[in-house]
Amino acid sequence: MDQPNEKIRYSKEFYGNLPLIRSEIQKPVLHRSIGTLNLNDIDKEVLIRARLHTSRAKGKQCFFTVRSVSQTIQCLLAVGETVSKPMLKFVGSIPKESIVDVEGKKIESCTQQNIEILASRVYVVSSSASRLPLQIEDAMRPETDDPEELQIRVNQETRLDNRILDLRTPSNQAIFRLEAGVCKLFRESLQRKGFTEIMCPKLISAASEGGANVFGLTYFERTAFLAQSPQLYKQMAIASDFEKVYTVGPVFRAENSNTHRHLTEFVGLDLEMAFVHHYHEVVDVIGDLFTEIFRGLQKEYKTEIETIRKQFPCEDFKFLDPPLKLDYREGVAMLKEAGIEMGEEEDLSTPNEKFLGRLVKAKYDTDFYILDKYPLAVRPFYTMLDPKDSRFSNSYDMFMRGEEIISGAQRIHDPELLTDRAKFHGIALDTIQAYIDAFKFGCPPHAGGGIGLERVTMLFLGLDNIRKTSLFPRDPKRLTP
Amino acid sequence: MDQPNEKIRYSKEFYGNLPLIRSEIQKPVLHRSIGTLNLNDIDKEVLIRARLHTSRAKGKQCFFTVRSVSQTIQCLLAVGETVSKPMLKFVGSIPKESIVDVEGKKIESCTQQNIEILASRVYVVSSSASRLPLQIEDAMRPETDDPEELQIRVNQETRLDNRILDLRTPSNQAIFRLEAGVCKLFRESLQRKGFTEIMCPKLISAASEGGANVFGLTYFERTAFLAQSPQLYKQMAIASDFEKVYTVGPVFRAENSNTHRHLTEFVGLDLEMAFVHHYHEVVDVIGDLFTEIFRGLQKEYKTEIETIRKQFPCEDFKFLDPPLKLDYREGVAMLKEAGIEMGEEEDLSTPNEKFLGRLVKAKYDTDFYILDKYPLAVRPFYTMLDPKDSRFSNSYDMFMRGEEIISGAQRIHDPELLTDRAKFHGIALDTIQAYIDAFKFGCPPHAGGGIGLERVTMLFLGLDNIRKTSLFPRDPKRLTP
Repeated sequence: MDQPNEKIRYSKEFYGNLPLIRSEIQKPVLHRSIGTLNLNDIDKEVLIRARLHTSRAKGKQCFFTVRSVSQTIQCLLAVGETVSKPMLKFVGSIPKESIVDVEGKKIESCTQQNIEILASRVYVVSSSASRLPLQIEDAMRPETDDPEELQIRVNQETRLDNRILDLRTPSNQAIFRLEAGVCKLFRESLQRKGFTEIMCPKLISAASEGGANVFGLTYFERTAFLAQSPQLYKQMAIASDFEKVYTVGPVFRAENSNTHRHLTEFVGLDLEMAFVHHYHEVVDVIGDLFTEIFRGLQKEYKTEIETIRKQFPCEDFKFLDPPLKLDYREGVAMLKEAGIEMGEEEDLSTPNEKFLGRLVKAKYDTDFYILDKYPLAVRPFYTMLDPKDSRFSNSYDMFMRGEEIISGAQRIHDPELLTDRAKFHGIALDTIQAYIDAFKFGCPPHAGGGIGLERVTMLFLGLDNIRKTSLFPRDPKRLTP
Repeated sequence: MDQPNEKIRYSKEFYGNLPLIRSEIQKPVLHRSIGTLNLNDIDKEVLIRARLHTSRAKGKQCFFTVRSVSQTIQCLLAVGETVSKPMLKFVGSIPKESIVDVEGKKIESCTQQNIEILASRVYVVSSSASRLPLQIEDAMRPETDDPEELQIRVNQETRLDNRILDLRTPSNQAIFRLEAGVCKLFRESLQRKGFTEIMCPKLISAASEGGANVFGLTYFERTAFLAQSPQLYKQMAIASDFEKVYTVGPVFRAENSNTHRHLTEFVGLDLEMAFVHHYHEVVDVIGDLFTEIFRGLQKEYKTEIETIRKQFPCEDFKFLDPPLKLDYREGVAMLKEAGIEMGEEEDLSTPNEKFLGRLVKAKYDTDFYILDKYPLAVRPFYTMLDPKDSRFSNSYDMFMRGEEIISGAQRIHDPELLTDRAKFHGIALDTIQAYIDAFKFGCPPHAGGGIGLERVTMLFLGLDNIRKTSLFPRDPKRLTP
């Protein structure tokens, strides 16, 4: 009765290009994500929507893998009772990166060359162009020097030019989920500590740091600037009794720096806090914030970290609780002992910062530490002077793997002292009058700092370039996609 | 033995201007906030840091109130064994808005004219200028027409020019804490639903909506623009397999609109989500998101809402669970029935939106509803056509108290259809090629929308101007502070 031709016709319903989904029918979503398939599903019929990652037709069989987020699953389509040769041909020729619906039976993956799904139906939901500017398999290849491994890589410019494809690699999927985690942990920690989130304007009327490195624009027949930092607004919130505030948002720097760690637009995680007696009340809050972020990442993003490590091997991030706090002079002494020539009141160069990071790691076994009491001369005019030795200041930087990720200080909250310090720095008072006036109507002593989100993610994961942790990075040469 | 002079000398230690706090000594913080003082503290010595709100010396007594965040507390200083006349004079002359440390005994507030603290020590931590551009008491006066009440008000321009002072009113303290709550509830709800937070660049290479209403700037010898919406980036994240994304950030509109509900920079709460069969999968998620936000606000921000109502009386915000979803044609029918003349395929004017909001409220008793399936002609080119009747589209707006707070749609995820629709709208293809190309390598069907944070806060609280819910508002005429 069942003629072969009958079967072939029958199998036509089991594959093909779906019509463009324009929301014709609302029906229950029975599709499963790859990540939720487990041993309980063995021998069950499952339906998944995912991307065609690879496929290889071989005689009467087509082996293909589908990918979703950071996971792939192996499928097999074999010509037989309900699978026709035309169906095999169709599936074998679906362009990679197309989105497909696959229905089939979940089987144990240890059998049959790691096949996990015996496919019975395959439909194309959204077809990809057949020529890809980069191959996902190349883009996800581990960065090891193993001579046994294929050495084909995708260079960074090609990746960034085709960011939509590049972002589909398992490690990129994991990097940006982990980065979202940094924000989540930052906010949750500060909310627990009684902070209020504020929104600070990015369009401002005066260049906050004297006009250097600032983007200007025409604003209804006037000139406006893009904020290089939300600091003035955080401080005004403190002067307005918000007590403890944080803000997450873009920060703009018109700086022609083409390095592994500079962007022209990055995300600032900023906080500011009134204190009672001593700015260390704030430093302790920030230190504890980082402990909570690091601990949260290692606990809640274990899978993501493992996925990223497969492509970008790196040692675990180490930290102490409470964090190590070094006096600037101690840091300089460590560098001197190691043969670096520098004075106590001199600024740290980037190489010296990195070197000190290594010395600290060797001595204290931590990748995170706080360097406190910077020389006054190397800090901005609004930095509070040390009460005992005014060569130094109530300011601090914090480091991850030897690179600065937050800079902060007790700010001068007294308009007279602030005026004196601005004059001392040769700053024209009329350009900062609004800033000074913010403290005229009583302001509690306060301190704070700004954290670079992309740097924290990069350094936590030991990645080599900040463009790896910015979804659509902006630098002097790149404004697209 | 104890000569009066001795006592007076002794009381000199009990008051005065503290030296500028430069973090001399780190010591335990014993200060309490006003909000934490309770019945358990009766007859105990307490120490608080707060602002001097009002003071009135009268013979041998000085009554003063101190304020912190949204709360005030009454204090009394009376000349006696340890309080000298000079101390009374000093305290009586502290400028309002100065920050003071007050030590004293907490007493029951029902006794002695509502006095709650019998002060024994008063120090000025940070002094305010004695002339204030606005009085906090005026700025916090209820907006009622009670002829018994003082009718002195502070106008909006004076408030915004002196925002640091204006923000100190109890209702402003509460408004911005509640607004932070909107963001928190938005993120928490979407995180529970499996969304990932993404960060979208604000500096972009092409004016997203054809160059109108966009701020341009010079970017390293090129022209850049400020993003009017993160939509392209959210959609690229969907094309990159992030499945469900949200982003919170500034949105820039160079629109010369001087209305109660337009800002040139506001905060967008944006989301985008891949769906399987029907865009109502996304509409339901957004509807549920709003239910969770409204419910969360009413539960977690009860005190803030009460504080705000005291100054800005307003009816409770009402909503249905699940939310009301009306077809656009139903909405038009309701308007027609009420005497408005308009066609089914015509756009809603702002007055008609408001009127429809009142009709919906009268009929369904809800301040929130969804209007679905807008006429295709009034929506942007990337809006997916209704599958059955292409005069309409798979798009929606949502309303609070009759004003639009989110606009969204199923987006066309097919590059060919998108090209056709752009041509139909007369859009030059070269200006949107990057957008079209984002869908070339396979993209799941998806829908989303953008919520205006300040509008949600304004309309939830029934406030009359969006400048009341923007910490430092920006409009065509205002770029400061």
